Amino acid sequence: MTPDGELPISDLVEPDIELAASLFDRLSDATRRGRGIVRDSYGAGEQIAHDIIRSAGERIGLEVSVDAIGNLTMTLPGRDRSAQRIIIGSHLDSSPQAGNYDGAAGVVAGLCVVSALKEAGVYPRCDVSVMGIRAEESSWFNISYLGSGGAFGLLDPACLSIPRSDTGRSLESTLIECGFDPRAIRERRILLDPSKIRAYLELHIEQGPTLVAEGLPAAVVTGIRGCKRFRNARCIGQYGHSGAVNRAHRHDAVAATVALLHHLESIWLQQEDAGADLVVTSGELFTDPAMHAPSKIAGETHFVLDVRSVSDATMNAVATEARQAAARIGDTYRVTFDLGATSDSPPAVMDNRLRASLMGLLDRPFEMPSGAGHDAAVFAKVGIPTAMIFVRNENGSHNPDEAMNLDDFAVATQALIGLVLQEAS
Amino acid sequence: MTPDGELPISDLVEPDIELAASLFDRLSDATRRGRGIVRDSYGAGEQIAHDIIRSAGERIGLEVSVDAIGNLTMTLPGRDRSAQRIIIGSHLDSSPQAGNYDGAAGVVAGLCVVSALKEAGVYPRCDVSVMGIRAEESSWFNISYLGSGGAFGLLDPACLSIPRSDTGRSLESTLIECGFDPRAIRERRILLDPSKIRAYLELHIEQGPTLVAEGLPAAVVTGIRGCKRFRNARCIGQYGHSGAVNRAHRHDAVAATVALLHHLESIWLQQEDAGADLVVTSGELFTDPAMHAPSKIAGETHFVLDVRSVSDATMNAVATEARQAAARIGDTYRVTFDLGATSDSPPAVMDNRLRASLMGLLDRPFEMPSGAGHDAAVFAKVGIPTAMIFVRNENGSHNPDEAMNLDDFAVATQALIGLVLQEAS
Repeated sequence: MTPDGELPISDLVEPDIELAASLFDRLSDATRRGRGIVRDSYGAGEQIAHDIIRSAGERIGLEVSVDAIGNLTMTLPGRDRSAQRIIIGSHLDSSPQAGNYDGAAGVVAGLCVVSALKEAGVYPRCDVSVMGIRAEESSWFNISYLGSGGAFGLLDPACLSIPRSDTGRSLESTLIECGFDPRAIRERRILLDPSKIRAYLELHIEQGPTLVAEGLPAAVVTGIRGCKRFRNARCIGQYGHSGAVNRAHRHDAVAATVALLHHLESIWLQQEDAGADLVVTSGELFTDPAMHAPSKIAGETHFVLDVRSVSDATMNAVATEARQAAARIGDTYRVTFDLGATSDSPPAVMDNRLRASLMGLLDRPFEMPSGAGHDAAVFAKVGIPTAMIFVRNENGSHNPDEAMNLDDFAVATQALIGLVLQEAS
Repeated sequence: MTPDGELPISDLVEPDIELAASLFDRLSDATRRGRGIVRDSYGAGEQIAHDIIRSAGERIGLEVSVDAIGNLTMTLPGRDRSAQRIIIGSHLDSSPQAGNYDGAAGVVAGLCVVSALKEAGVYPRCDVSVMGIRAEESSWFNISYLGSGGAFGLLDPACLSIPRSDTGRSLESTLIECGFDPRAIRERRILLDPSKIRAYLELHIEQGPTLVAEGLPAAVVTGIRGCKRFRNARCIGQYGHSGAVNRAHRHDAVAATVALLHHLESIWLQQEDAGADLVVTSGELFTDPAMHAPSKIAGETHFVLDVRSVSDATMNAVATEARQAAARIGDTYRVTFDLGATSDSPPAVMDNRLRASLMGLLDRPFEMPSGAGHDAAVFAKVGIPTAMIFVRNENGSHNPDEAMNLDDFAVATQALIGLVLQEAS
């Protein structure tokens, strides 16, 4: 209740969950290929999703436009058309054999928000746009954020020659085939002016198990973890007979790699105890199948070391410690580590004010970092105040078993409505 | 000097190193294929080596015989032909692209010993035989000790159907082609009576780096390490996004495997500190190349765990600890280890009296275990007093870079002469 006894407006404006259910069903029916969803970036599956969403936007009566590289924008006009607008969006492509919700949920949520505003007769102060962003997944062109990065003129034009992983056709040819204009990327054209955007809001399924474990429907995202990755780390020792060479004379690449990874786990624990946000992963680790044998000491290992945090300082500290430890442990085990260069993506900071507002709109407020990257990181990078809300989801993402409950989706979408009302009333 | 002022006889009987040098040269010239040596078990390369050694034995004037499965025996008759005899031997096959000395050095040493006795006019009390044993390497028929195991009737007749790794022809067909008799194996015929053998002596190059590191020419072998091997160990976790899943919710197969292997290294150190003989090796370790990815937590690892010791008790203790630790660490990391069954080969004990005698014959006595298996293990297993002497060798074995110095070979062969004189004078 407000002080004068009325319900707050945000309780009067509710998302149309039947609209959401119908859109999710149509998206699933039209883009499922076998067990999983296939919405290939700049391909048939993604286009079908854009068509479904666009026709829903037109039915709601939104202003629809498509930019030079295919990003879809559907706008509910505000009272002041010249005021900075609010964008709610996410991507409509998927990785191969994926689930129905990664990406699409954020676009459907945007439609539910503006549809609810329109239905309730709320006329926002500024334009509120829903964006269906192109090609966020790196599965098809080996690069993330083609749609959002391209909208802000951030892409290296060299990306136009990247072949699509399945067809082998370049991004440039593929864009032309779809009726889009690769020159926008070649000329680094700015299709979306950051100075005209008041806020970017993105709803996304959580891609990890935290909300399931916590028993909560939704979480406000504190930031998007950056990644510092040793993609091609190696340890070079010397092959030897497993029975005939004693400890003191070994150059055992497996033993040394185990010692390094074990040490880095202890560093992770220390950082966690000190309150830092951090994950450290070696998801690829292998001896050389052409050389290894059950009765050989391994002369070489290859591994990946993936360090993520919402804090650049934390990532840098761990990467520095990894290099120092590799040198020390290499000496001890008489091997040489070659960790190679890191490939880095910086963390993205969410807007504190928007974060706090979203937290205030949840019955059971909960915050967590996002481990995976999202278009929101690109919007944040160009200085747009950005916020994200996660929806509980089982079984991770990028697989056919994603499972988001519509009740949880409604909780998160209701919070977005509340935030838009606060920002645009 | 002996008490009566004469040189001890063993100093008067010296190995003919020119004979050794010439035999090693002939073996190298005749069986080198490209960079390495190829003496394929029951194949052309092994037969060439047998022919070279046999003709040398005939020139020395030894009695020559070949048993039903091709083992070559060359005997210097003793004063009492019915007395238990001494055998000096090793194998004449090699792994593919191997070095010139693994195996052959022991047979050449035997010829040098009997040749020296004959040259010096020493008539031993018992027969002294030199054996060129067949097919010790497992490279060709995926089974070790065909020659020595077959001589004692120890082979499972099922081995006759094993195909040779290169030709694909069964052991049975291959034996027939060579003019040998597979029925000896099928009927488990005993070709060599253990009760008639007083001692088996084997000289072999060291296959590890210990003697090079110690700066010593030769070592007496304390025992041949047995092996307890988890050949197909696995850790089953759950794949997940490396950024999106925090520590508390991970089922990280690499992290758990690292923790297990690191723990087993600490057990190894404890056992070493307590004076136990032990080596612990994981020479194969890999995530699944069809499933792993730089941004995934690994859901599975495969690895080998190879535990060796001259003590069965030590191996059993480590294997038991490995299983218990796998259960504990599996719980901690929310993964399941499946270590699978072990394949076991028992340690072989060398004869204490012969060991002590050999030690007394070295200027710089040094003892060490053998990590690799040898025909000597089979002779010891059937109860024959057995001793081995290692010769310093660079670069390990089973590769073309084996490097044995003839001066070191002479030191070890001189010790064998001394031992034979003690045993057979």
